This record gives sequence, C-alpha cells and structure tokens, in this order.
Amino acid sequence: MIANDPYAELERRFARLSAVNRASSILNWDRSAMMPSGASEDRADQLATLGVIAHGMIAAPDMPELLSRAEEGATGLDQWRAANLREMRRLWVHESALPSDLVEARTRATSACEMVWREAKKNADFKSLLPMLGEVLAVMRRVGEAKAAALGTSLYDALLDEFEPGGRSARIDELFGELRTFLPDLLGRVMERQAKAGKPLALDGPFPVEQQRKLGEEMCRRLGFDFTHGRLDVSAHPFTGGTADDVRITTRYDEADFARALMGVLHETGHGLYELGLPRDWRRQPVGNARGMALHESQSLLMEMQACRSDAFLAFAAPRMRAAFGKDGPAWTADNIHRIYTRVAPGYIRVDADEVTYPLHIMLRYRLERAMLSGDLELADLPGAWNEGMRDLLGIEPPDDALGCLQDIHWPDGGWGYFPTYTLGAMAAAQLFAAARRAEPGLMEAIGKGDFAPLLAWLRANVHGKGSLESTDQVLVEATGDRLGTAAFKAHLETRYLSA
Amino acid sequence: MIANDPYAELERRFARLSAVNRASSILNWDRSAMMPSGASEDRADQLATLGVIAHGMIAAPDMPELLSRAEEGATGLDQWRAANLREMRRLWVHESALPSDLVEARTRATSACEMVWREAKKNADFKSLLPMLGEVLAVMRRVGEAKAAALGTSLYDALLDEFEPGGRSARIDELFGELRTFLPDLLGRVMERQAKAGKPLALDGPFPVEQQRKLGEEMCRRLGFDFTHGRLDVSAHPFTGGTADDVRITTRYDEADFARALMGVLHETGHGLYELGLPRDWRRQPVGNARGMALHESQSLLMEMQACRSDAFLAFAAPRMRAAFGKDGPAWTADNIHRIYTRVAPGYIRVDADEVTYPLHIMLRYRLERAMLSGDLELADLPGAWNEGMRDLLGIEPPDDALGCLQDIHWPDGGWGYFPTYTLGAMAAAQLFAAARRAEPGLMEAIGKGDFAPLLAWLRANVHGKGSLESTDQVLVEATGDRLGTAAFKAHLETRYLSA
Repeated sequence: MIANDPYAELERRFARLSAVNRASSILNWDRSAMMPSGASEDRADQLATLGVIAHGMIAAPDMPELLSRAEEGATGLDQWRAANLREMRRLWVHESALPSDLVEARTRATSACEMVWREAKKNADFKSLLPMLGEVLAVMRRVGEAKAAALGTSLYDALLDEFEPGGRSARIDELFGELRTFLPDLLGRVMERQAKAGKPLALDGPFPVEQQRKLGEEMCRRLGFDFTHGRLDVSAHPFTGGTADDVRITTRYDEADFARALMGVLHETGHGLYELGLPRDWRRQPVGNARGMALHESQSLLMEMQACRSDAFLAFAAPRMRAAFGKDGPAWTADNIHRIYTRVAPGYIRVDADEVTYPLHIMLRYRLERAMLSGDLELADLPGAWNEGMRDLLGIEPPDDALGCLQDIHWPDGGWGYFPTYTLGAMAAAQLFAAARRAEPGLMEAIGKGDFAPLLAWLRANVHGKGSLESTDQVLVEATGDRLGTAAFKAHLETRYLSA
Repeated sequence: MIANDPYAELERRFARLSAVNRASSILNWDRSAMMPSGASEDRADQLATLGVIAHGMIAAPDMPELLSRAEEGATGLDQWRAANLREMRRLWVHESALPSDLVEARTRATSACEMVWREAKKNADFKSLLPMLGEVLAVMRRVGEAKAAALGTSLYDALLDEFEPGGRSARIDELFGELRTFLPDLLGRVMERQAKAGKPLALDGPFPVEQQRKLGEEMCRRLGFDFTHGRLDVSAHPFTGGTADDVRITTRYDEADFARALMGVLHETGHGLYELGLPRDWRRQPVGNARGMALHESQSLLMEMQACRSDAFLAFAAPRMRAAFGKDGPAWTADNIHRIYTRVAPGYIRVDADEVTYPLHIMLRYRLERAMLSGDLELADLPGAWNEGMRDLLGIEPPDDALGCLQDIHWPDGGWGYFPTYTLGAMAAAQLFAAARRAEPGLMEAIGKGDFAPLLAWLRANVHGKGSLESTDQVLVEATGDRLGTAAFKAHLETRYLSA
C-alpha cells in the first residue's frame, strides 16, 4: 500500500492522528469544564501519553520518504489533496524539528511554570516567577532555534508560524506601525467625545446565572450555533474547544454583570461557528483544520465586535435583555446599552480592554516577547519595561505586577508568538465584515432582526468552508479583494466611535 | 532496557496502555453524559482509534518474549509485582487471542446491532432484530472459540473469564442450583406475608430534580464518595465510569418517584467507592484494576441492598427525605419507607426487580445465553424460550418482547457471559457485609447515624485496596473465611423478609 499510493497512506495516517488529537481536545475541555480538582495529575498523564503517541505518528521514521514520494506524484492530485499534502508537510516540519527530549523539556518547564505563575500572580510577586520563567524562556529559545532551522526563518517567526502559518514579523511590524500612529490620537478623541456625552447608566443587577445562561444560549442559537453539534458550559477561563463535529464553548457568569458574560458567549460562538463550518469532507485531514489563529480570532471578533456591538443588533437584543431579567427603565434602552458596550477607556488588563485600546496591549506584549527572546531585554527587567511600555502606549502605569506583567498565562505556558494574532484577527474581522456588508446589502437589516443567516452563509462560503485550503492572505484577497491591512479596522473604529 | 529488566519495561508499557484506556473511559462517560447527539460518529471514530492503539500496545510483536523473560525472572519480584506480571499475561492472552479482523468484526456487528435493537425494543419487534443479533451471536462464537483455545476452557467460560477472571460455569451451575431450590419457595412466603401486611403508602410527589440531586449528593458524600475525585451526573442508563482518580457516576431522575433514583445513586456510589479505594501505588498497572465484575457488583449491592435498605439506615434517611421535599405524614415514616424499599413482587423487567426475584431473572438469561452459544437454542426460538422460562422461574409471562427478551442491551452489544456476575455479586455482597458486621460490632449503629466510615475502612482493607492482587475467591476467603457461597445471601433474605 505504501509502495502503491503514498498519498493514500498519508491520508490514512493523518486520519488516525486526527482521531487522537480530537480525543485530546475533548479531554482538554473536560479538564477545564468538568474534571474534579483531584484528577489533574491523572489527566495530565493521559494527555501527555496521547501527545507522545501523536508525536510518534507524525515523526515516524518512514514519514520523510512517504511525504517525498507523495510530493513527487502530486501533479495528479486535485487542489484539496494537493493542499492537504502541503499541510501534512507543514505539520511534519514543525513536529520533527524538535527532538523528543526538547518536547519533554518544554512540557515539563511550562507545566511547572504555570503552577508557579498562579501563585505569583495571586501575590503580585514577579520575583517568585523569575527562575521558572527563565527556564521557559530558555526552552522556548531552543524550540525557536530548532524550528527556525527547519523553516528557514528567524527564531521569532518560527514560533509565530505555529499559530499563524506563514505569519512573519516584518509584516506585523508594518501593520502594527500603522496602528501605532493612528490609535493614540483616535483614543484621545474618543475619550474626549465620550466624556462630553457623560457616563452610560449602569444596568441594575443582580442577574441570576440561570437567566444569563438562557439568554446566552438563545443568542448563541440566533448566531447559528448548532446545539446538536456543540455545548455551552462554564469554565474559569472562557474558551472554545472540542472538535468540528462537537464544539465545546465555555463562559463564566458574574451575577453583578451579565453584559460581559453575554459578549463572551458571542465571542466564543464566533470561534465555534468557524469550527462547525469547516469543510465537511476534510475534517479529519490537516487541510480541514482552521487556517490559523488570526482567522480564528477574526471569526470571534467579527461576531462579538463587528456584528453584536452594532446599533442594529443591540436594538434587537435590548428588549430580550429586559425580558430575560424582568427589567425596564432608562438604563435598559438600546441606546444606553450600546453606550455601555462601546465604552472606551485605557485599563491595566488586556482581557477587559475595549477594541480601541486592545491593540495597544498587544503591541506591548509583541515588543517585549521579541526583546526577551532576542536577549535585548533581561527577564529581571520585565516589570520595569512593562510599566514603561504601558505609560508610552496607554498613558497609565499598573500599581503592581498582578495588574501588569503577571496578568497573562501565555508566557508561563509557552505561548510565545501567540499575542500578535489577537490584533491581526481584529483587523481581519473588520476587513471581512466590511466585505460581507458590501456583498450582502441586506446584512445589517437582517442582523437587526436577529437573523444571522446571510452573514453566516457568506462566512461559510468565504472563510469557514475553506479550512486550510489557502493561506490567510489568499482567503482575505478572495473574500475582500485585499490582503490583510489596517484600513478597514481604522475605518470601523472611526465610524463607530467618532461619527453618528 | 528491554534486555536488562523486562519486568520494568512491561510496567512502562502497561502504564502507557493504562493512560490510553483511562482516556477512553472519560470519553465514554462524556458520550453518555455530555456529548451532543450529532457527535456520535466523531466519537466512535476517536474511541475506535484509541482501541486500535491499545490493542497494538498489548499485542506488540515482542510482547510474548518480554512476558516470558519477565516470568523467568519472577522469583525476584515481590507479591505485587508478581501479581502484576500475572495480570499482564492475562490481558495479553485475552487480547492476543483475537486476530484483528475479528476484533473489527465484533465492533462492527455490535455497533450495528445496538442501533437496530433500540428500534426493535421500541416497537416490540423481535423479528427485526433477528438478522443482526444472528451476526452478533456468530461473531461472539468466534470470539469465544478463539479465547477458549488460548485459555484452555470451554467457549462460555472463555467469554465469562473476560468479566470474571477465573469464573467457571461449573461453579455457577452449583451456586445457581442452590438458589433455584431456595428462592421460589421463599418468594411465595414473602409475598404471602407482605400481602397480609398490606401495601405500603405511596410517597406523594412530584419531586423536583434539583432537590433529588441535592439529596443524592448528600447521601453519596455520607457513604464516603470524594467529590474532589469524582462527579455525579445524569445519563439515560446509570453507570459508573471514569478512572480511579476521577470517578464519574450517573443517575436519572423521575419527578414522580425519587426513591428509585436515590437508590440508583447509592448503588453507583458503591461502584465508585471501589474505584476510589483501589491501591494508590498501582492504579496505572493491571494489578491495580478492580478484580472483576462479581466483586464490582458486590460493592454496589453491598451499599444499595445490604447497607442502605436496612432499617438502621432508613431510620437515618427518612427525616432527611422529608426535609429535602418538605413532606410529612404517615407515608414518610421510616417504617413505611422501609416497606417501600423492601417490597417484593415478580415483574417483567430485570432492572426494576427486587433482590428476591432478581436472581431468577439472571438464571433465565444465563440459561438462555449458554443454549444460544452452544446451538441448543435457535435464535428464532428465543422469545418462546424466554416466556417459558419466565413462567417457570417467576410465574408470569410478558405480554410482548419489549417487556421480554428485548429488554436488555447485553446481547446486542456483545456482553455475552456478563449476566451471571450480577448474582455472583449479590451473593458476595451478603457474604462481605455479614463479615464486616462480625468484624466491626458497631457497624450498624454507625450506619444508623449516617456514618459509613467503619464500613468503608473495612472494605478498603479487605476488598478495595487489594485491586487485582488476589483472585475473587482468595479475597472472599481472607475477608469472610469462605469462598463464594449462597449461605450468607439466603440468610440475609430470610432475615430481612421473613423475620422481625
């Protein structure tokens, strides 16, 4: 079989790999949403074992020969199979670049560091994190070097490439540079304008969890989420997991503030709809995976920021919010709720940031993680550099490191190279949504009636259904006429926050 | 490493196998308790792949040599390691006996048959099940033949051995023979006595699910279930799954009848406590597994039937039931509740049967599955043979096959040889509970205060903590002074149902 049809043999192997990875994904969801606390070591052992098995499948000794022989015969493959083979090669390059002792060292260092980080954050004690974070940085440098050699890129780009295939920092520098000259000025003007208009009225709680859950589920359904292929549950840190046929989204509820949890659900629903819309025939092959984190984040932000914080949608949602909690009065008008959902203010915490200041948080992290990886910034100097960056970019300085450089899990857990994809996603979201509105003139009117079918159909055809068939830029060019840029994002912010 | 220490290499491999099996166990639980309906094919693919991986680990080409070489050096092993090696051999014999095409044929036939069975049961249409059940029977005969050759037993005993290691039908015939001469007469006397006393008063519902859940969880905790290592959820068919560090028990609630769901929870809690009590140092090795289904069922029935349907426990539980549902009056006395929980009557459905008639249901299935496997009973004649057996054993005849030979999933899903372990478990439960009471004179008094600590400590020392170190009979001899017998079970039934 290997001799006769190497491509078919590869499909067989990658389908098996996919099954193992999908199993791990459900177990990961369970760990965050269901697992009792005492089972964490048991679960870590299961996941580590499945990880070793998956690694062994990709890094099998005969894989290079199989890939090469399939590539020699690739002219006979249709576009999906050709792209699938390209994705197989990509996965193989990333996986085989790392010797197994380095894979193990990374797992060990990041697991240990994550534990220390939880305590360090609680106590706002950066010094206690320093030794373990140093180990993670050292191991991530080794990972980056190994992948850089295999990919022929810089160390940072090699790390970035895992999250955003084909992503390069030269391009990010350019895009972020454009935002850097634009955002601070915009922020000042928005703040001034909102100060003049006065604070929105506060929504009076409490908001019982069960009503929040029902409202969230109703809205989730409206957006097109299919509960025969997914669930909505609770976890400490909201995320989207599971598989394309079994999407698990999570949120957390605060009885004092339903508005955040609700937008959180709509954000994760955007991620979930991407997964549910992946090409049905290719779900168990590499080409059937989501393209990368920039497009993934674009789908969550398109739903949350572009569609669901719009006047049109909030006019539809406001009476449903009033009904859900039995409320009324001036705080509960669509206009006031829209003002709450578009309030802008610099803050310390990234995950609480509005869409105007969020990119500034990202630029800070992008700048700092590159400096740490290159050795330009000593780890011990991180808190100072963080605070200086916050003053520079946002004009505020956190009172302690818990509200500063200890706030995110990404560095302790090895997610170096991940941060920029948040803002690439925000830009792509604006660009895609603008294109969808051009293509479907009735789109906003439908959203104003709670009907997301036209939007979802456009996204399925132009993004979701493509899986990893094309590069992020190809997807954007075909869907919007342009590769990723800042224009649509800037226009969106100016329209929403400075006009009307 | 293989060359130097074959036993250590085996431990390493079986730990990895355990991790894969534990992962499958959580995914199985999720399938019944959490998974959205549309994901069943996706999940089946994950579980089949993990099954193939696990099979490949045990049936690895060098495994026979590794096992033989470890056995040659076994004199140097302590008792746990020696027993572990014996269990490894046992698993290998069972797994390697089946060629992989037979494993696949079994999976395919049982999956397909289970689907057909659900419809056939709904429509009480045995004929529609006949072709698929015939395929399952054929494949199970092949499985039995292959295992019989490997184990040197009869076909039936080879199937039984998978569920009850060392279990043999000659022994079961003997034990069931003793019950066969005892139970019908006892049943007559109990029925007469209960008829004279009149029906217990009905408990007046409805009983909201949330209160049922809380009461169940409270009682589960009382029995000693540790919720930092387990969960209680809902599924269509209650079961205990997960791992020894992460036990997942399920129940189902009926708002018209809390009493059944509650006993169901206590039953599964008994299974769960066994898992939670398995030897801590050996949980990821074969010797750390539960001994077999007879002892497993003994632990659920010991809790449900022996401890929790006792006067002592129900006197403790009755006021808590009243408080849980805000009830009072003559139906809610401990005495009336005890009468409800010890009501005896022949019925059609095994899972609804009381502890007096339950063994008669089992004897029928044991008799019929042996006859079908040997060819003495044609599948097409099953409904007639079933109804005749019901008249013979229980004096009643089901009006249709849904209440007759279609009621259980075990034959469609390939669980041939499983049924007798239910009654072996009931006998072992009585024998162990009597021994525990002798060993701990204050046991019933403690249970009367809702304190299960003395009972649990005795079970941990005498059953749970032994894992698979000894055979079922060895465990019973050491704990009770005797191998498995009918005396304690008979005495228990006579005491509970004919005296006092």
